[in-house]
Amino acid sequence: MMLRIDEKRLLNNLNSLAQIGCTPDGGVSRPALSEADAAGRAWFKRKVQEAGLTFHADEAGNLSAILPAANPDARTLLAGSHLDSVPNGGRFDGALGVLAALEALQTIKEAGLSLPVHLEAISFTDEEGSVVGMLGSRALTGQFAEADLEQARLGQEELSAGLPRLNLVRSDIHLARRNPETLAGYVELHIEQGTRLEEAGLQIGVVTSIVGIRSFWLDFAGQAAHAGTTPMDKRADALWGAANFVLQAKELVMAQFSPGVVNCGQLIVQPGNFNIVPARVRLSLEFRHGSEDTLDEMEVALLTLAANIADQHHLSFSSEPAGNCIAAPMNPRLIQAVEQAATQLELRHTRLLSLAGHDAQTLSPFTPSVLYFVPSVDGISHNPREYTRDEDVINGANVMLHTLLILAENAS
Amino acid sequence: MMLRIDEKRLLNNLNSLAQIGCTPDGGVSRPALSEADAAGRAWFKRKVQEAGLTFHADEAGNLSAILPAANPDARTLLAGSHLDSVPNGGRFDGALGVLAALEALQTIKEAGLSLPVHLEAISFTDEEGSVVGMLGSRALTGQFAEADLEQARLGQEELSAGLPRLNLVRSDIHLARRNPETLAGYVELHIEQGTRLEEAGLQIGVVTSIVGIRSFWLDFAGQAAHAGTTPMDKRADALWGAANFVLQAKELVMAQFSPGVVNCGQLIVQPGNFNIVPARVRLSLEFRHGSEDTLDEMEVALLTLAANIADQHHLSFSSEPAGNCIAAPMNPRLIQAVEQAATQLELRHTRLLSLAGHDAQTLSPFTPSVLYFVPSVDGISHNPREYTRDEDVINGANVMLHTLLILAENAS
Repeated sequence: MMLRIDEKRLLNNLNSLAQIGCTPDGGVSRPALSEADAAGRAWFKRKVQEAGLTFHADEAGNLSAILPAANPDARTLLAGSHLDSVPNGGRFDGALGVLAALEALQTIKEAGLSLPVHLEAISFTDEEGSVVGMLGSRALTGQFAEADLEQARLGQEELSAGLPRLNLVRSDIHLARRNPETLAGYVELHIEQGTRLEEAGLQIGVVTSIVGIRSFWLDFAGQAAHAGTTPMDKRADALWGAANFVLQAKELVMAQFSPGVVNCGQLIVQPGNFNIVPARVRLSLEFRHGSEDTLDEMEVALLTLAANIADQHHLSFSSEPAGNCIAAPMNPRLIQAVEQAATQLELRHTRLLSLAGHDAQTLSPFTPSVLYFVPSVDGISHNPREYTRDEDVINGANVMLHTLLILAENAS
Repeated sequence: MMLRIDEKRLLNNLNSLAQIGCTPDGGVSRPALSEADAAGRAWFKRKVQEAGLTFHADEAGNLSAILPAANPDARTLLAGSHLDSVPNGGRFDGALGVLAALEALQTIKEAGLSLPVHLEAISFTDEEGSVVGMLGSRALTGQFAEADLEQARLGQEELSAGLPRLNLVRSDIHLARRNPETLAGYVELHIEQGTRLEEAGLQIGVVTSIVGIRSFWLDFAGQAAHAGTTPMDKRADALWGAANFVLQAKELVMAQFSPGVVNCGQLIVQPGNFNIVPARVRLSLEFRHGSEDTLDEMEVALLTLAANIADQHHLSFSSEPAGNCIAAPMNPRLIQAVEQAATQLELRHTRLLSLAGHDAQTLSPFTPSVLYFVPSVDGISHNPREYTRDEDVINGANVMLHTLLILAENAS
């Protein structure tokens, strides 16, 4: 009979973690560096220690449970995801991947198996981007510098208040970098956050490539003015320009760049009074596509559109990059290992593209990486109603267990 | 030959007052209750006394220069505006009206004219709203209660620190209320804060009505969703709805409700992340018109538009009132008096609507009131670059002088 994870323990752990930063409607708010993030981390450390695994925290706040191989010079096979959430998000995004990896290690330890690689279940800091996005996986792979914090999305004040909560020191974060020769690969389980598996009646989706994501801050600047005495046709209302861009960017991407997507998720008006014509709008822009060439085309088209709209409304326009995650193909050998595990477990699986960024994207140029999905009910995610059925949670963790065993065997 | 005000004295006074609370770029910061406001008031008291007029301060801090009639039982004709400014504002807004009224009284006194009414040049406290907005004129007309101070915009701490600077006592402010039977009317000169007079080459604009202002908070609620994995055509993006409303509200008001105006001055996105489809947008809506009937129509049209747009974008919609200042028609007899004065002085004048609120709005239901404008260069106001030419300052004061004489004569 095949080895299986402890279903009840895994479901209990998922439920217990979801109480930390829980929202009244059953969701989770655990943004990186928040008090809730710090509490979630303390909970994870306890669980690692209860499991009899070795706890480790690096300079970037990445937290690990380690099941050492007999040979101290063995390479390390990583498995994990992230414990942070978006504000008012769901309980599965990230948490499932970390807890499934922890559960797999605990199962292997309890089975008394001796493997030729160290196994490390890891939670990466700030995947969701409260700070800079994938801070932890970027630091581990040498793709982070202290200067990156100057663009911290939560602002310098919140950043300075938040870093000590995680025992982080600005100037030390880059020291989390590892030597890729010490690593044997990275495996990540995540919820799909879409409806393709559910609609096709499948249980496991193995990702062949993760979309690239580019983001920008757009600034539309007009003229503050009295909202009564300034004639409508004499106003340089920054919100008129930004509103026009939000609508036209949507039309442009749907018409010309499908299946690429675009989102304007934040819009800040200054001075922001009932009776003052908006002087300035700062708008966040993010767009995604599986091809880097198409991302180049989208960038030109969207920034040109914004500049043209600003002109029409007598506004000035500027933009600054706020993030760039390149499209990331997954490793064929690791893809096959996940498929083999799913087949052994008699689970219906398929290959697909990931439209969301994940830590596996950052890891993939550094060490052989793979990402796979279990279904999300109705595809809802980044929302308190995010939900994945117990049986899919369990399937995902069992695939993790056997993928690690297959890769460990082949690494010997 | 017609009586004229003393041009040099008026311009000197304006210039001298502008030194109090002056900003480095030639503007004025004299918010109500500030040290600069207190200094401006002390300056005004000296000027009243130098002019040989009677100084009076009431319980609301309204300051007056009085030229008494021979008959102590005569009614009082008020003329004035306010000495306070917005933070970092201009030197003409309010100050011109007070100093023109003072100059008119001084001219009449020096001419030795005996009138059948008391004349009172008055500066109303807090027109600009550092405290509650039009505190002085509200108190004088019985539209103020001590409880209103609970919403003081400058905060309770600043309020408690500021009231003693003006020798004000919270519980006594309402005692400034007058008996309307003792009053013969109110005349206010103000800068236009717009460009209609300038563009038409006119010198005097007689206001027929001061606009009513209605404001609402609009809520567009959709569904937070992952900005990558949620297909574009499956999103309920609250910002798409709000952006569409901002643009269509502008088109609607310009096409159907001119010279009414609309402003969306604040827009708040939740949760407000790069990678989350906006779940909710809270949008401020303010619209103005001179007619209460038209305001009713605008309210229905704009709220219906918002509800329809929300439907199109699969959003829910709600609204809540956030303020209502009713439109204030000016008194026809006083309008004609100002026009007669302007005609006698051979000034090019017109009738127009005031798109900004003024003390005359508060006075109008209480005593026959009129407001008239002189041009503002480029319409700039609430800004250090606010400017009105000397000749327009002088014209405004001469119209004040003759309007008071005409009204006094008719009141006899």
